[in-house]
Amino acid sequence: MNFCSHCGERVSLRVPEGDNRPRHVCESCGRIHYQNPRIIAGCLPVYGDQVLLCRRAIEPRYGYWTLPAGFMENGESTEQAALRETLEEAQARVQLKQLYTLTSIIHVNQVQLIYLAELERPEFGISNETLESRLFSEDEIPWDQLAFTTIRNALRFYFADRRENHFPLRHIEMEPGTDSLPLKP
Amino acid sequence: MNFCSHCGERVSLRVPEGDNRPRHVCESCGRIHYQNPRIIAGCLPVYGDQVLLCRRAIEPRYGYWTLPAGFMENGESTEQAALRETLEEAQARVQLKQLYTLTSIIHVNQVQLIYLAELERPEFGISNETLESRLFSEDEIPWDQLAFTTIRNALRFYFADRRENHFPLRHIEMEPGTDSLPLKP
Repeated sequence: MNFCSHCGERVSLRVPEGDNRPRHVCESCGRIHYQNPRIIAGCLPVYGDQVLLCRRAIEPRYGYWTLPAGFMENGESTEQAALRETLEEAQARVQLKQLYTLTSIIHVNQVQLIYLAELERPEFGISNETLESRLFSEDEIPWDQLAFTTIRNALRFYFADRRENHFPLRHIEMEPGTDSLPLKP
Repeated sequence: MNFCSHCGERVSLRVPEGDNRPRHVCESCGRIHYQNPRIIAGCLPVYGDQVLLCRRAIEPRYGYWTLPAGFMENGESTEQAALRETLEEAQARVQLKQLYTLTSIIHVNQVQLIYLAELERPEFGISNETLESRLFSEDEIPWDQLAFTTIRNALRFYFADRRENHFPLRHIEMEPGTDSLPLKP
């Protein structure tokens, strides 16, 4: 950040009075420009004993498989964001069951929320973000072709928890240096 | 938002190609400035049969009682944010037990996460954001002096759930028009 988005003057990076960390401050109009983590909301859609994955049509991780998820927008709830992303990316309508994973991806300032969801009918499709959508049973999951560690975590937890028929909220912290993005096959 | 925070030129509000909602776009350097909900993280600190509340030393709702909570910062996890806010606002060290409420406060673009936490010793204090901290038993809660509806919700759920000794995650949507901020006594 170089300029004040309100008045257009240059900002400086300093600790404002009464604060304890550096912020971008406009010395002209006085505004403080806070930067905060963003929320990614999505679903783990289940149909019978299968789960729905999407193959990414965009970078990063073009061509790799993921769960439908994306940035939560202003003016919606976390649940609405998860449903919207599932409809946009997989053309799928689901019923949310519960919040299942909450992952703080610290080094990219993101918090990812994945909901367990039920796909009512085997209807899904593609979009400008999705090359292909497909149902996978557990033994078909393309583990070495998953886009993100967070997705691998959610799927691993899901198949393990399904054996117990018990799905506790999974609270995960990904520290700087862990492989949240490019996942080595 | 009037100016591009990167190059300082004026931004326009329009739907970028491939998107479906208006964004602030810099026609000079091409940057798209997304605006997304922010996370508020905090604790419901429990000590025996009492809970710890803080009386606000800042607006909004100066002088009203609240739980220690505040904006999550870049570079931390949701849990770290909840612990930090509890230490900063109440000078209290707690052990997090579980995520307890997740509230989408839609009309102010916030998602509030409150963790159940255990106060190990009855040690707490004040800060530049807190006039007073105090332990309250259920029959002492100043229901008509609480700062926010979200805080009232969390406390109501807590005392009800405590009777059952079962604390499910409470998922709440506050729609535009509901009284999330000034709570009428």
